[in-house]
Amino acid sequence: MIIPVKWSDEGVLMLDQRLLPTEEKWLTLRSFTEVADGIRDMVVRGAPAIGVSAAYGIALGAKNFVGTNIADLEDELDYVCEVIGKTRPTAVNLFWAIERMKRTFQKAKLEGKSVSEIKQILIEDAKAIHEEDIESQRLIAKFGGELIENDSTVLTHCNAGALATGGVWGTALGVIRGAVDQGKTVSVIADETRPYLQGARLTAWELLQDDIPVTLITDSMSGHMMQKGKVHAVVVGSDRIAANGDVANKIGTYMVAVLAKQHKVPFYVAAPLSTVDLNCPTGEEIPIEERNIREITHVQHIQLAPEGVSVNNYAFDVTPNEFVTAIITEKGVARKPFTESLRKMFEE
Amino acid sequence: MIIPVKWSDEGVLMLDQRLLPTEEKWLTLRSFTEVADGIRDMVVRGAPAIGVSAAYGIALGAKNFVGTNIADLEDELDYVCEVIGKTRPTAVNLFWAIERMKRTFQKAKLEGKSVSEIKQILIEDAKAIHEEDIESQRLIAKFGGELIENDSTVLTHCNAGALATGGVWGTALGVIRGAVDQGKTVSVIADETRPYLQGARLTAWELLQDDIPVTLITDSMSGHMMQKGKVHAVVVGSDRIAANGDVANKIGTYMVAVLAKQHKVPFYVAAPLSTVDLNCPTGEEIPIEERNIREITHVQHIQLAPEGVSVNNYAFDVTPNEFVTAIITEKGVARKPFTESLRKMFEE
Repeated sequence: MIIPVKWSDEGVLMLDQRLLPTEEKWLTLRSFTEVADGIRDMVVRGAPAIGVSAAYGIALGAKNFVGTNIADLEDELDYVCEVIGKTRPTAVNLFWAIERMKRTFQKAKLEGKSVSEIKQILIEDAKAIHEEDIESQRLIAKFGGELIENDSTVLTHCNAGALATGGVWGTALGVIRGAVDQGKTVSVIADETRPYLQGARLTAWELLQDDIPVTLITDSMSGHMMQKGKVHAVVVGSDRIAANGDVANKIGTYMVAVLAKQHKVPFYVAAPLSTVDLNCPTGEEIPIEERNIREITHVQHIQLAPEGVSVNNYAFDVTPNEFVTAIITEKGVARKPFTESLRKMFEE
Repeated sequence: MIIPVKWSDEGVLMLDQRLLPTEEKWLTLRSFTEVADGIRDMVVRGAPAIGVSAAYGIALGAKNFVGTNIADLEDELDYVCEVIGKTRPTAVNLFWAIERMKRTFQKAKLEGKSVSEIKQILIEDAKAIHEEDIESQRLIAKFGGELIENDSTVLTHCNAGALATGGVWGTALGVIRGAVDQGKTVSVIADETRPYLQGARLTAWELLQDDIPVTLITDSMSGHMMQKGKVHAVVVGSDRIAANGDVANKIGTYMVAVLAKQHKVPFYVAAPLSTVDLNCPTGEEIPIEERNIREITHVQHIQLAPEGVSVNNYAFDVTPNEFVTAIITEKGVARKPFTESLRKMFEE
């Protein structure tokens, strides 16, 4: 059972995903700045995992606050949230977790709690966010698993597994685990997901741990696999879903979605409602992170491209809702038109 | 001016493309088995370059033959052609060059030439194949360059440059060089082309040499670039074109073609007629090479994927003719229906 981020008395524990699959090393992050660095440097990644980590980072910032004045604590928390909010721009779960922790603080403050009580309340709420995340995934696994047919092969892009979430199920891999849990035989095709290789390094590793059959391909190979009839469904996670069902996810997702439509393969997105951003009317408004070009020009110290070449490194793309068959959340399966089906899930 | 394979008195000279872009090293291959190994191990790659190398390898096999009996030379050449013919299955130029060299031998034999005369004839014919290849590219560059608009950005996949051919122009990069030669401003987007990184290592290197602006992206990013309107045309090479215009080319080409159609971006294939296989009615009949999975699981000594994971490494895919806007050859620009337009080019 993989839980990539944990709260402990010494600080926030994170499995260093940069070292997988060859090394399993846990880091102990003892300050909120260390947690912020951990998110930015991708010790942990994946929208739900970033949300949980942000909540723990804020709780750690509160815990480490020295003083008894609530106004000072509030200033400190504003600063903590600002630092954590600047780590990664695309995953909305980050901002969702920050907003929730801020509301929890305001409520406790209004209720006249002391600084030490508020610290405890924030720690408890971060833990609750984590538990709720795992419970959401369990439900996503259940609802999504029902969509996967027996004896089928599912293609997934990037890692939307336990490693990308609070742990245990995962979102896209949760759907696959859910199907397996329901007694179905499922194989997975994982594309490697350049440049950061989350598919090769993380998804392949996770599924091997669970004895779920997995075949690794390059990102350029999924069209060929669909052409040969080897893919029966695509399931991916998401970093932010707009109100209309446009889906931001790891760069390359859009290509897989277009190919899935071309080959009449269902394209499912699995994500908790904390990934849905009703303030974003469409995918157009979702900011797309650009990352260091060294991720593309080098693998560790090995130079892959000539010195001085211009490089674009967009970390995400947006898949327009027309390519999305269904969005699987903890509230069930949303279908088109997503503007209505998603809004209804929030109202339930 | 890049010419990646050359004939010399010491043997066949090959620029070792496995070491680019960080090292420019020439190998001297002194026997046909060394040439066969060079083709198989991808010292040289790209369909036209494989054709030229095969011709030189056969010439070298003849040159190294010890004896004066023509029947023995014929046996030796049959063996040489068999060994060279088993190096790479997809590029038809390999078999085209073998057939041509065999015909040249038969003609010389019928004309009553001596062993030493035949050796010289085969060397001259290999050199002629090389020169004709460069001349074909010059014409492809001219015809293809006319299709590229001024101030446009062209996406290319893999390396169909001077490095992939007898040299100087290249096929897909020939089209780009042709457009530049015609006074047009053209920028190139090169995708890295996993697993072997011909885009990052070779195309980027070639274009930097020529001062043609080039931006490197991952293979997963071309959909996003098209979505953002940043790609005005796609040009690729080919390893084998079926009689109906189905195009086998580097794995991932099919994905780019589907996306180009989705975004109404013209998709051009540039290749000499020696790449067109009229004996293959459709792409279905083109054999697709599967290569060592270590190309995907490792970069040099660095392990990217977990031990024991199953991997598929298809080196090529087939783009059905419906996705191809035009095929640019040394005889001009073939358009749909390709069955007729390609056949006509052979008849001219």
